[in-house]
Amino acid sequence: MHELESKKIIALMSGTSCDSIDAGLCVVNPDLSCKLIHAINYKYPVHIQAKLFQLFSGKASIKDLCQMNFAVGKCFADACNLIISEHGKPDFISSHGQTIYHFPFDEKLDGVSLKSTLQIGESSVIAQETGCMTISNFREADIANGGEGAPLVCFADEKWFKPLKKNFCIQNIGGISNVTVVSKDNATFGFDTGPGNMMIDYCVKKFFNKPFDENGEIANSGMISESWLDCLLQDEYYFKNPPKTTGREYFSNDYIENALRFGPKEPKDVIATLTALTAKSIAQAYERFVYPQVDISEVVVGGGGAYNLAMMKFLRHYLPKHIDLKTHEAYGISNNFKEVMAFALLGYCAYYNIPNNLPDCTDARRRAVLGKVTNC
Amino acid sequence: MHELESKKIIALMSGTSCDSIDAGLCVVNPDLSCKLIHAINYKYPVHIQAKLFQLFSGKASIKDLCQMNFAVGKCFADACNLIISEHGKPDFISSHGQTIYHFPFDEKLDGVSLKSTLQIGESSVIAQETGCMTISNFREADIANGGEGAPLVCFADEKWFKPLKKNFCIQNIGGISNVTVVSKDNATFGFDTGPGNMMIDYCVKKFFNKPFDENGEIANSGMISESWLDCLLQDEYYFKNPPKTTGREYFSNDYIENALRFGPKEPKDVIATLTALTAKSIAQAYERFVYPQVDISEVVVGGGGAYNLAMMKFLRHYLPKHIDLKTHEAYGISNNFKEVMAFALLGYCAYYNIPNNLPDCTDARRRAVLGKVTNC
Repeated sequence: MHELESKKIIALMSGTSCDSIDAGLCVVNPDLSCKLIHAINYKYPVHIQAKLFQLFSGKASIKDLCQMNFAVGKCFADACNLIISEHGKPDFISSHGQTIYHFPFDEKLDGVSLKSTLQIGESSVIAQETGCMTISNFREADIANGGEGAPLVCFADEKWFKPLKKNFCIQNIGGISNVTVVSKDNATFGFDTGPGNMMIDYCVKKFFNKPFDENGEIANSGMISESWLDCLLQDEYYFKNPPKTTGREYFSNDYIENALRFGPKEPKDVIATLTALTAKSIAQAYERFVYPQVDISEVVVGGGGAYNLAMMKFLRHYLPKHIDLKTHEAYGISNNFKEVMAFALLGYCAYYNIPNNLPDCTDARRRAVLGKVTNC
Repeated sequence: MHELESKKIIALMSGTSCDSIDAGLCVVNPDLSCKLIHAINYKYPVHIQAKLFQLFSGKASIKDLCQMNFAVGKCFADACNLIISEHGKPDFISSHGQTIYHFPFDEKLDGVSLKSTLQIGESSVIAQETGCMTISNFREADIANGGEGAPLVCFADEKWFKPLKKNFCIQNIGGISNVTVVSKDNATFGFDTGPGNMMIDYCVKKFFNKPFDENGEIANSGMISESWLDCLLQDEYYFKNPPKTTGREYFSNDYIENALRFGPKEPKDVIATLTALTAKSIAQAYERFVYPQVDISEVVVGGGGAYNLAMMKFLRHYLPKHIDLKTHEAYGISNNFKEVMAFALLGYCAYYNIPNNLPDCTDARRRAVLGKVTNC
């Protein structure tokens, strides 16, 4: 084991909303603190993005997947090289990749577990195109230890918030919403609360031809359909005990289209109600699975949802009044690039062979070093 | 860079015939010589094998692929653990994986190359289930350098045969056939000559319900249809200039079924002719692409085809009389486990950061260290 040193790391993440790659140059220190130096949002070229959505829809072939792994790897490398052209080479790159499939269930075939996950964005392409060692594919080793391979950001939340000695819900609202419960006394745990922006984005695109509901303006102009909201909240996922994870496989376009049949006819009311769904499903998840265990004093929101003023308003409405509601920015952590910072930290740990999963969050049998090393 | 030491390595390979996993415990030495200590052939459980064939047929989903990556990884780990239970832990594991797709062509999307390859058998599962560091996914970095990602065994052929100072065709006859030309004066080069046992095995299964033509007995009992053989040899692949690689994507079950429409009606004549096809396509490939460059004095056959007496007889018939025909066993290299030994060597080089591709074989832009490191 080398002695720990501060490392410059470019971290790469492409989330379930799949519109672009987040790339951030970070410095991670031996105390596992992380500072974001510079970050960019790199849009996928249009046909590559369309092909990615085909992969999600199940209407793509193994050949498409094989090709897109390399093509997405090239896009990741291009995003890195934009940062490198300005800031020089980092010590290494840490890439989450683009999740294409996530199957955290206990099915078996011939007695062999089928629990699995699949992130693309070929690390060899990133390493060769940038000339930087690349650490990637973090989720696999957690699943190989019987875990769900998610949520992984819990590890960063624990390192960054535990020292503050309060009881936090650290709530990310990306494509999917996930919470990490960091308390001063108990073990950290976390789970996916349900959809984040994914269903909202889909409908904003469908009805308004915009990529997302900027500042939550559409939701704020609509009316919540309480009856549709109640129906949507009946989905069994919300009642399942943690640890639990979900994704685009479950809250799929088909799922949304099905749900829309029973929804309000006015598009802005659809957006308002789906925004309320994310907020209320988070609040209910806390009531069912968090408050019975931890007396929460503060909720800290990150991800794109933190910029959605309707989402924040609904969250304030559904959360108990005594709980403070803040965003990550209050703690010097970028709302937008928080996951990027987390994967810089996970990569740092992989580099130094420090276990970087939290079994209480992922249900893994043991702590493990997640991440594979691709030299250049 | 550490100083080179001899390493005990379990190497894993599952070829295009996809019936089983070859696992071999090897010792690789600092002079890059390799000795096979113990090897096994580990059959895939029946439903996993069936699912693998579905993946090849294009009739499987991204979900199936995601799951099979982990399931095949577990099979690889089980094969290792059989060896470990007898011989103890190796220094590390080197896994080729199971190729599912290989697309070495220059197509682009949004200006991004789609050249790609896909090997499954999750390295994190192998590492966690065995407790051994695992080096895997060799082909990706060659493709990331503009290469075809194949043939990789050329590297081992050069290291093992070049010191003997003769002009060799090192011919592997696995599912696909590939040759490495190792000469005392020129740079090593190699390419896939075409089908090996793949079409033969398919028809032996179809007509005789056996896994393969043991000792070539069926082929030896049949008659070659010279007209069908001539037609089959018209395929454009055989005329393409090297470097070139092929696989199950091209010589697919559909390809074989199509070809069978024009073939002899007597099943044993089909087997005889397909065996002659492999032998004659090899001999023609030498005439077209090898002899004009190198004056070959010896052909050394390995792979399952080396045990097919009809194949060896046909090869002897089609090759010029002055060329010696031997099998790998004459050089202390297992016919059956030669590729396993080669991937032990490739893993050894990856471990020590020694470039382990040959650009003259793969058409890569430069030498590179192939292989990713997964810690346990």
